[in-house]
Amino acid sequence: MPAVLVLNGPNLNLLGTREPEIYGSQTLADIGQQCERVAAEFGWTVEVRQTNHEGVLVDWLQEAGAAVRTGSLIGVVLNPGAYTHTSVAIRDAIEGAQVPVIEVHLSNVHAREAFRHQSYVSPVARGVIIGLGAYGYELAIRALAR
Amino acid sequence: MPAVLVLNGPNLNLLGTREPEIYGSQTLADIGQQCERVAAEFGWTVEVRQTNHEGVLVDWLQEAGAAVRTGSLIGVVLNPGAYTHTSVAIRDAIEGAQVPVIEVHLSNVHAREAFRHQSYVSPVARGVIIGLGAYGYELAIRALAR
Amino acid sequence: MPAVLVLNGPNLNLLGTREPEIYGSQTLADIGQQCERVAAEFGWTVEVRQTNHEGVLVDWLQEAGAAVRTGSLIGVVLNPGAYTHTSVAIRDAIEGAQVPVIEVHLSNVHAREAFRHQSYVSPVARGVIIGLGAYGYELAIRALAR
Amino acid sequence: MPAVLVLNGPNLNLLGTREPEIYGSQTLADIGQQCERVAAEFGWTVEVRQTNHEGVLVDWLQEAGAAVRTGSLIGVVLNPGAYTHTSVAIRDAIEGAQVPVIEVHLSNVHAREAFRHQSYVSPVARGVIIGLGAYGYELAIRALAR
Amino acid sequence: MPAVLVLNGPNLNLLGTREPEIYGSQTLADIGQQCERVAAEFGWTVEVRQTNHEGVLVDWLQEAGAAVRTGSLIGVVLNPGAYTHTSVAIRDAIEGAQVPVIEVHLSNVHAREAFRHQSYVSPVARGVIIGLGAYGYELAIRALAR
Amino acid sequence: MPAVLVLNGPNLNLLGTREPEIYGSQTLADIGQQCERVAAEFGWTVEVRQTNHEGVLVDWLQEAGAAVRTGSLIGVVLNPGAYTHTSVAIRDAIEGAQVPVIEVHLSNVHAREAFRHQSYVSPVARGVIIGLGAYGYELAIRALAR
Amino acid sequence: MPAVLVLNGPNLNLLGTREPEIYGSQTLADIGQQCERVAAEFGWTVEVRQTNHEGVLVDWLQEAGAAVRTGSLIGVVLNPGAYTHTSVAIRDAIEGAQVPVIEVHLSNVHAREAFRHQSYVSPVARGVIIGLGAYGYELAIRALAR
Amino acid sequence: MPAVLVLNGPNLNLLGTREPEIYGSQTLADIGQQCERVAAEFGWTVEVRQTNHEGVLVDWLQEAGAAVRTGSLIGVVLNPGAYTHTSVAIRDAIEGAQVPVIEVHLSNVHAREAFRHQSYVSPVARGVIIGLGAYGYELAIRALAR
Amino acid sequence: MPAVLVLNGPNLNLLGTREPEIYGSQTLADIGQQCERVAAEFGWTVEVRQTNHEGVLVDWLQEAGAAVRTGSLIGVVLNPGAYTHTSVAIRDAIEGAQVPVIEVHLSNVHAREAFRHQSYVSPVARGVIIGLGAYGYELAIRALAR
Amino acid sequence: MPAVLVLNGPNLNLLGTREPEIYGSQTLADIGQQCERVAAEFGWTVEVRQTNHEGVLVDWLQEAGAAVRTGSLIGVVLNPGAYTHTSVAIRDAIEGAQVPVIEVHLSNVHAREAFRHQSYVSPVARGVIIGLGAYGYELAIRALAR
Amino acid sequence: MPAVLVLNGPNLNLLGTREPEIYGSQTLADIGQQCERVAAEFGWTVEVRQTNHEGVLVDWLQEAGAAVRTGSLIGVVLNPGAYTHTSVAIRDAIEGAQVPVIEVHLSNVHAREAFRHQSYVSPVARGVIIGLGAYGYELAIRALAR
Amino acid sequence: MPAVLVLNGPNLNLLGTREPEIYGSQTLADIGQQCERVAAEFGWTVEVRQTNHEGVLVDWLQEAGAAVRTGSLIGVVLNPGAYTHTSVAIRDAIEGAQVPVIEVHLSNVHAREAFRHQSYVSPVARGVIIGLGAYGYELAIRALAR
Repeated sequence: MPAVLVLNGPNLNLLGTREPEIYGSQTLADIGQQCERVAAEFGWTVEVRQTNHEGVLVDWLQEAGAAVRTGSLIGVVLNPGAYTHTSVAIRDAIEGAQVPVIEVHLSNVHAREAFRHQSYVSPVARGVIIGLGAYGYELAIRALAR
Repeated sequence: MPAVLVLNGPNLNLLGTREPEIYGSQTLADIGQQCERVAAEFGWTVEVRQTNHEGVLVDWLQEAGAAVRTGSLIGVVLNPGAYTHTSVAIRDAIEGAQVPVIEVHLSNVHAREAFRHQSYVSPVARGVIIGLGAYGYELAIRALAR
Repeated sequence: MPAVLVLNGPNLNLLGTREPEIYGSQTLADIGQQCERVAAEFGWTVEVRQTNHEGVLVDWLQEAGAAVRTGSLIGVVLNPGAYTHTSVAIRDAIEGAQVPVIEVHLSNVHAREAFRHQSYVSPVARGVIIGLGAYGYELAIRALAR
Repeated sequence: MPAVLVLNGPNLNLLGTREPEIYGSQTLADIGQQCERVAAEFGWTVEVRQTNHEGVLVDWLQEAGAAVRTGSLIGVVLNPGAYTHTSVAIRDAIEGAQVPVIEVHLSNVHAREAFRHQSYVSPVARGVIIGLGAYGYELAIRALAR
Repeated sequence: MPAVLVLNGPNLNLLGTREPEIYGSQTLADIGQQCERVAAEFGWTVEVRQTNHEGVLVDWLQEAGAAVRTGSLIGVVLNPGAYTHTSVAIRDAIEGAQVPVIEVHLSNVHAREAFRHQSYVSPVARGVIIGLGAYGYELAIRALAR
Repeated sequence: MPAVLVLNGPNLNLLGTREPEIYGSQTLADIGQQCERVAAEFGWTVEVRQTNHEGVLVDWLQEAGAAVRTGSLIGVVLNPGAYTHTSVAIRDAIEGAQVPVIEVHLSNVHAREAFRHQSYVSPVARGVIIGLGAYGYELAIRALAR
Repeated sequence: MPAVLVLNGPNLNLLGTREPEIYGSQTLADIGQQCERVAAEFGWTVEVRQTNHEGVLVDWLQEAGAAVRTGSLIGVVLNPGAYTHTSVAIRDAIEGAQVPVIEVHLSNVHAREAFRHQSYVSPVARGVIIGLGAYGYELAIRALAR
Repeated sequence: MPAVLVLNGPNLNLLGTREPEIYGSQTLADIGQQCERVAAEFGWTVEVRQTNHEGVLVDWLQEAGAAVRTGSLIGVVLNPGAYTHTSVAIRDAIEGAQVPVIEVHLSNVHAREAFRHQSYVSPVARGVIIGLGAYGYELAIRALAR
Repeated sequence: MPAVLVLNGPNLNLLGTREPEIYGSQTLADIGQQCERVAAEFGWTVEVRQTNHEGVLVDWLQEAGAAVRTGSLIGVVLNPGAYTHTSVAIRDAIEGAQVPVIEVHLSNVHAREAFRHQSYVSPVARGVIIGLGAYGYELAIRALAR
Repeated sequence: MPAVLVLNGPNLNLLGTREPEIYGSQTLADIGQQCERVAAEFGWTVEVRQTNHEGVLVDWLQEAGAAVRTGSLIGVVLNPGAYTHTSVAIRDAIEGAQVPVIEVHLSNVHAREAFRHQSYVSPVARGVIIGLGAYGYELAIRALAR
Repeated sequence: MPAVLVLNGPNLNLLGTREPEIYGSQTLADIGQQCERVAAEFGWTVEVRQTNHEGVLVDWLQEAGAAVRTGSLIGVVLNPGAYTHTSVAIRDAIEGAQVPVIEVHLSNVHAREAFRHQSYVSPVARGVIIGLGAYGYELAIRALAR
Repeated sequence: MPAVLVLNGPNLNLLGTREPEIYGSQTLADIGQQCERVAAEFGWTVEVRQTNHEGVLVDWLQEAGAAVRTGSLIGVVLNPGAYTHTSVAIRDAIEGAQVPVIEVHLSNVHAREAFRHQSYVSPVARGVIIGLGAYGYELAIRALAR
């Protein structure tokens, strides 16, 4: 059964406790379960990972690229967190490893500080879903089905 | 039966013929039918409108605000087209009329010219869906259901 | 009896309901009555108009220019709303049709988002009155009397 | 007999009376007659239109695109006036409807305010003619003949 | 009888002689008399002061804040002159001493050099009146009555 | 018989071989012949010159200024090539020597790199013709006839 | 007994009453007493001064430079208030008079308006202490002991 | 006994050998001992850590947030080194994990390259101490005592 | 005997002791004597003043303007020191009081920090002399003789 | 036998498969062999490493600095990949650990996106070699021989 | 007898005829005679040269550097004209050939277009004299005597 | 025997005498001999030229383009000196004449003034070698062999 990889960047392990008025009260585990329900509609499994390390995200995206080529992976739902705004390395990993990526942000980054309006990842993503909270992950999985 | 309003800005009436490598080959009518199918899941109807006039979008958003307050409208799926990048008036209409809006862009605006990276609308939208083609409209209707 | 034209841009028809903490609780009709009282001091009538369309404001300003030349119009009190910050066309109409204009803003635009600090209209207006709420319209009519 | 469409943006109906030291003393009707004389050399008719509305220019450019595809229209001579500097919608209409456009400005926009130096339209026009007054329209028609 | 304080910044003592084509031919004393006439309508006295020193303006604004709290002062009409564009200290005095301030400029600062378009004072003023010459002071006193 | 001087800046001697998809396949000699045909309609001769040296363009423009004052020269058609974007000296020569200049660019500079969008020459030219290929030279000669 | 000079810029005389949620509820006199306690640990006296005048701060810093050279002064704790962001004169006084300065800000200037993020003084200070309220003054005196 | 965590970013393990004219000759171990002496005054222990990895700093700050909530940790003294200027992830960790942080820089970053003047961390720190060398760490511990 | 006024801004009283490698070893008194020698060639006296206060410079420039109109003053040699880069008030005093001013800087401000490259005073000065040390004052007096 | 360290940043392990039209078809192992051949000319060995982690590059550069001081390492050939444009930490490691570094880029970064034109590393490198593909590594080793 | 070289950049040969309201009515020959009179006071001859070619100015400055080293030349009075604002080559020639240069501008460049406010030459000149017309050359020769 | 052309821009004839701490002590002739030795390895001759004239560099690059097409020239090693940062004409010559160019800079331009960080030439060069002194020319010749 092919999988979807749900990759999460720095501080997303704090979900549920971190600034709930911005990020909502669901934990990453809750989000994982929602994703599984939606992925099951398409006959897919879901693997949720989180890391605070930019380099680990790059490693995982490269792995994902290889797995997509073998057919064991459908694509990646990526919430790069703070690295969205500062990481050229993640952008290059997506381009270099040719991974289909849907970028997701829980909060409406455009309604926050100016430095959160710029994304190095968006230009190389297939799609971007912003501000819909945990539900954005579900929509991203649906988007991968297209 | 409550409705969802799907508002489209300038040149979106050209869909299907206009630069299909960027905007896809579906017409606005096709998109309307897809939206109806998804809205029906939630017991809603859909009304699709298009205009090339900034002021008409403002008029419609104000109407929508009133209809939301009477309960006859769920919210608006808005693709402001080129006015995304230049219209403070549309932004103010959304804020002033307190309309729940999901902003949708067919193409990945972040992979195009720099002036398309800025949106006056995003900071006042509930959510933003970018680069998923016509399918983004469907997801936006699902997002309104939350 | 000569007239004063009070032109209002996008979303100003929402006055009284739209974000009253910013724009006050008076409607445009209320403001019109206040203006009439002040204009009467000078023997003038008042016509209040509102539109969400940039082009209609341009049309009206051109009309106004012609009426000023025939002596039937004293001048224009103009609240361009959101078009203040984006419309070169309105600026050119004021210059091209040679209309005496007093620019009015209900809220203190300088205490809001950065993009509201710039006005294309101010450099061609006779005077600018900012942040005094509906009362600013009254003062603008007094200013036209000079 | 195929036609050339001469589209004029905001405030160009004031030609002849508006700041003649900048824009010259010819009216739009005068310019139309000159254009007809030149177009006749190529066996074409001319239709001159003017509007203060951005959306109407978008409508007309879309119409023009369709007419070019049927062979009834040669192309468009476009003086977008103030919308030159602020309208992404007009730019998208030209690109989306694939209209051959020659952009014309009566005055030398580069010798005026800084905000008049930028054109959203120029990058999608076939050619640009600036500062030659009404005569620029004639040259633009000749340019369409190429 | 409560008072209104009319504070004037650098070079405003030159009024009447300094560049009359920009600033008009009235002296500060003339303006004081006009202000007194208007203030009398509300049962107020007027005190006009002028200084070339940024620090003195800060001193006076602090004094004013104290007087407003005792009820002996209604508020301040402030023309900060050149310090408008460079003084954070004056801005902080207004905020820190909680003085109701109407900012006035004789000339249309937006039609002059770019560095005159920015005001440190406007965001903390109750209102701003620009370009109406000496008459702007009168309107400012009326505005304090609201 | 009075003359028109057609001055060409750096790399324009490569015309016909240099990037023909941008600059067309005509050589400078071809352009010269076209110009002669058009100039002959007005009873003028044409002299075409090309140089890679900024200083030589300045020399020629000064000469041209003198010749215009004696009546032996009508004016200059100037394609400054790359110096368009970097030369204040050429601008000053046009202003200082009071030469009537029509600026011409073969390609649409506004559809190319950002540094090609700025012209030091345009503000002092009588007119500017962009993107019409070799035909732009012919139109420039016609423009000098006005 | 050598002294430490504690210099305070504009509006710091309002401490205790001015925006206590930003600046705390201690007065400048309270701060002086705290400073004296800490300075006494090192066998120093403290002199606290405040002014709203940029020039007076410059005067005092020059005096301080002379006193440091005679050994009667250890150094200066300087809170330049609003002049932090606008005064090159104060910066030059510190450099020119070679005064050891510890710059102190009560509030976290980096969490406020953008214009408060820049300090002309910091590059010539020995150290900078920000956001620790009145306690920052004590630490600054300790820092001078190094 | 509650602890204070002293976190150090990249290259701070080189202290004592790295550019001593900028960073001083004390090693990180020396600084640790100083910190312990000061912390002991308050009955606290000190743990000093250093890493070259942005992600590790994020991990540690999250841990610290949890420890503060259990009462085993007072707060963090943080010298983010080079990540000060580039890391949104560290900023988000401080905000998200709600850690009380005093930011410390050994050298006067404002007297160095322009890119060192900006700190992503300062706006979310309780206080900032700059340019006081190793002594700044001691003061930071004192600041945590408030 | 008519006079020349030599006005000096902040920190110039430190001349001779302040950073002599930048400002030279002459004191202001030395410079005054040199100026007197040169002024005597033209039958003029010299008065040298220095202040650290922006407002005092404004006062003096206004006085100077009046004295020039009575014929008792030839003009002003002005070294505004740090206020060069920050004072709109001094600029307005020169313009408003119509004083002929030669601006002088001892050091080459263009070889120093970027913020010293901008002068608010230069555009309203008759001439500017930079980097020639004390000798620049002598040349400025000669320049006033023209 | 002394060594040369060839350090590679993120995504360079993809060489040979990643966008071969930009990065060439050689793998990192191929490049390693070429480097060994050239290094052998100078009696050196080569160690090639790659990491996706910024912190690991910092660790390695610090190690390298120590090894250079013991004489076991000649220097570092560094291709920082995407971290070139975002990492102050790597820059500080080179400066702090005093490692002789030759910076290498396979592709011509100046012919790509604007954010790739800036390098934090170049100012502290001994030399920079750009756009020569895998051959650039060989030249870098030769450069270390100087 | 040692010489002073007076070098003039593009369009300065037009002096006397070119825009006399900006540049005065004296020719370059007139200026040469004035310079000779002043130089004679110091026992020097004067050579005046003018060129429209940037490269020729570089050649002459290199020559001048050599002549200064042999003692036959005192230094250079340089009016780089338009190259002031665009030529790094001239700047490098002054630095590289170590020529003592006094930069002169006839008009007040700071009162003209913004691009004339920047000088590549000033940071490497000994002194700069602006806006004093032809008399500035005389003062520059006097300045060389120091 | 095919040749390599080594073109040098302004002030590079001063090599050996000009700022040897930046540019080294070798003359251009020394560099030529080194280049010849390396070129001989590949069976090529070397021609070294230098000019201070931008236009001459353009002439030579055009010549070189023609020679490359006839097979008599391998390519160009180009050190454009100061024109690197200001010349669009040289860039266009490389592109227009299709010359294979390796750009070389003796000093590390990225460790110098900001205006030296930008190169108009790099985007059209095959490769760029910076900061390796005269040895960079040798490497450039080796690079042409690829």
